[in-house]
Amino acid sequence: MKLIRHGALGKEKTGVIINDIKYDTSAFGEDYNEAFFENDGLNRLKKFLADNEGKLTKVADGERLGSPVARPSKILCIGLNYADHARETNAQVPAEPVLFMKSTTALVGPNDDVIIPRDSVKTDWEVELAVVIGKKASYVEESEALDYVAGYALHNDVSEREFQIERGGTWDKGKGCDTFAPVGPFMATPDELGDINNLRLWLKVNGKTMQDGNTSNFIFNVPFVIAYVSKFMTLLPGDIISTGTPAGVGLGFKPPIYLKAGDVMELGIDGLGESRQELKAYAKN
Amino acid sequence: MKLIRHGALGKEKTGVIINDIKYDTSAFGEDYNEAFFENDGLNRLKKFLADNEGKLTKVADGERLGSPVARPSKILCIGLNYADHARETNAQVPAEPVLFMKSTTALVGPNDDVIIPRDSVKTDWEVELAVVIGKKASYVEESEALDYVAGYALHNDVSEREFQIERGGTWDKGKGCDTFAPVGPFMATPDELGDINNLRLWLKVNGKTMQDGNTSNFIFNVPFVIAYVSKFMTLLPGDIISTGTPAGVGLGFKPPIYLKAGDVMELGIDGLGESRQELKAYAKN
Repeated sequence: MKLIRHGALGKEKTGVIINDIKYDTSAFGEDYNEAFFENDGLNRLKKFLADNEGKLTKVADGERLGSPVARPSKILCIGLNYADHARETNAQVPAEPVLFMKSTTALVGPNDDVIIPRDSVKTDWEVELAVVIGKKASYVEESEALDYVAGYALHNDVSEREFQIERGGTWDKGKGCDTFAPVGPFMATPDELGDINNLRLWLKVNGKTMQDGNTSNFIFNVPFVIAYVSKFMTLLPGDIISTGTPAGVGLGFKPPIYLKAGDVMELGIDGLGESRQELKAYAKN
Repeated sequence: MKLIRHGALGKEKTGVIINDIKYDTSAFGEDYNEAFFENDGLNRLKKFLADNEGKLTKVADGERLGSPVARPSKILCIGLNYADHARETNAQVPAEPVLFMKSTTALVGPNDDVIIPRDSVKTDWEVELAVVIGKKASYVEESEALDYVAGYALHNDVSEREFQIERGGTWDKGKGCDTFAPVGPFMATPDELGDINNLRLWLKVNGKTMQDGNTSNFIFNVPFVIAYVSKFMTLLPGDIISTGTPAGVGLGFKPPIYLKAGDVMELGIDGLGESRQELKAYAKN
């Protein structure tokens, strides 16, 4: 299945994509949130779709897409998980996964504007494969880790490099700014994808290809990452783990290239669709 | 007002403390969560208490206390915010606040057991003043920051130093382990407290005083911290900001002292009560 959420920000309704057509599933009566995943929602949704075949309403063309999953308890991110990206940022290849957190208030839809924070001069892009957790995970074995996956989605781990690296303390300052986590267009259940360790992922800025990588270059693959993170904290249904970005971020250029208002990011991952965000300057409401 | 939550973990009911007596407020019909704070819950609760004076049921003696606020969207923590603590950990006094995040799955009640994670050898204590946010805060001015506070609570920012410092990446690995955020016994609204920049806070391990500090030694005080954090991400009603710990943590001793199963932590802050946690070894359920 391919899950979507559509409608105005904060008021999204649920839906699915079947044969490239978007259908509303509001009648299912639940958001795609922690309770949904915890209570076997994917299987119940599958039955709902079978029971309502041919009866679903299409989503209007051009309607906004939200994040395909509701705000989770946490968004965890793996840093420097592609050797080529570690090299370009002058970081050593890590001996174990680098972990940081992204404020869930950063979550937006796949085609929403990305707001450059006030006083920001180093806003950067990072195309990433995001994993959505399907059930509570604590001290999970690597061999069983994929049983804890609800699905996968495209994520742009937007990052402010000055906030992240030059402002003291941990990376979290530069990762959780509002709009810094566009997710979607959809969450695909694992059966929709081929080998998750062999997916091409790419990102363009103003039409120019900046990142063109493949998850086959993961330093730590998805099962390892889930098992690893679950040793430090319990993962809840609906939680998102973003698995790191390949080479080609703005920080890696000499001199670095950062985003400015009006720039457009387009990104995609094999089997997980494409997204597009325009950069806007911060303006006080 | 002094807000409490009481009952079994995950099934807490709400309550208040009036003249040192705990009363149940389940009839108010709302948990102390994001929606409560967002929708003027404190004022509505105040009215409910006035309307029901003399009619509330007492909470049974010995009943478990949960965190006084429901699981928030995020727990943010300020590191190295007391000069004496920065010195003892051989860290420089920071030029601006050090910020990290704590997984909300770490949240427990004030007297719950703290579980030493599997393979942990450096579990440590940190008594802290926690601020509960009362309304959405983004780019808040320092002069107005206290308007965004719902209340204050006692927090033990339990930390695994090896996970935090020696395992690569950010501090988040060592801060968000399950049970690593005992909060409470209660959340006090600001009117219940005197000068928040002059509160004594202390922590004992097995009856021996390890920390004995005062918030007058903050490097960055509460209004500054709220304004600062709100530049990097939106704070939501119910979010927790923990403001850092004074000297006397286990890491600061030569040689360091870490917690083991059976140890007991007792801690308190002027006007915010006391809490007590016993350490337990991790055991697979």
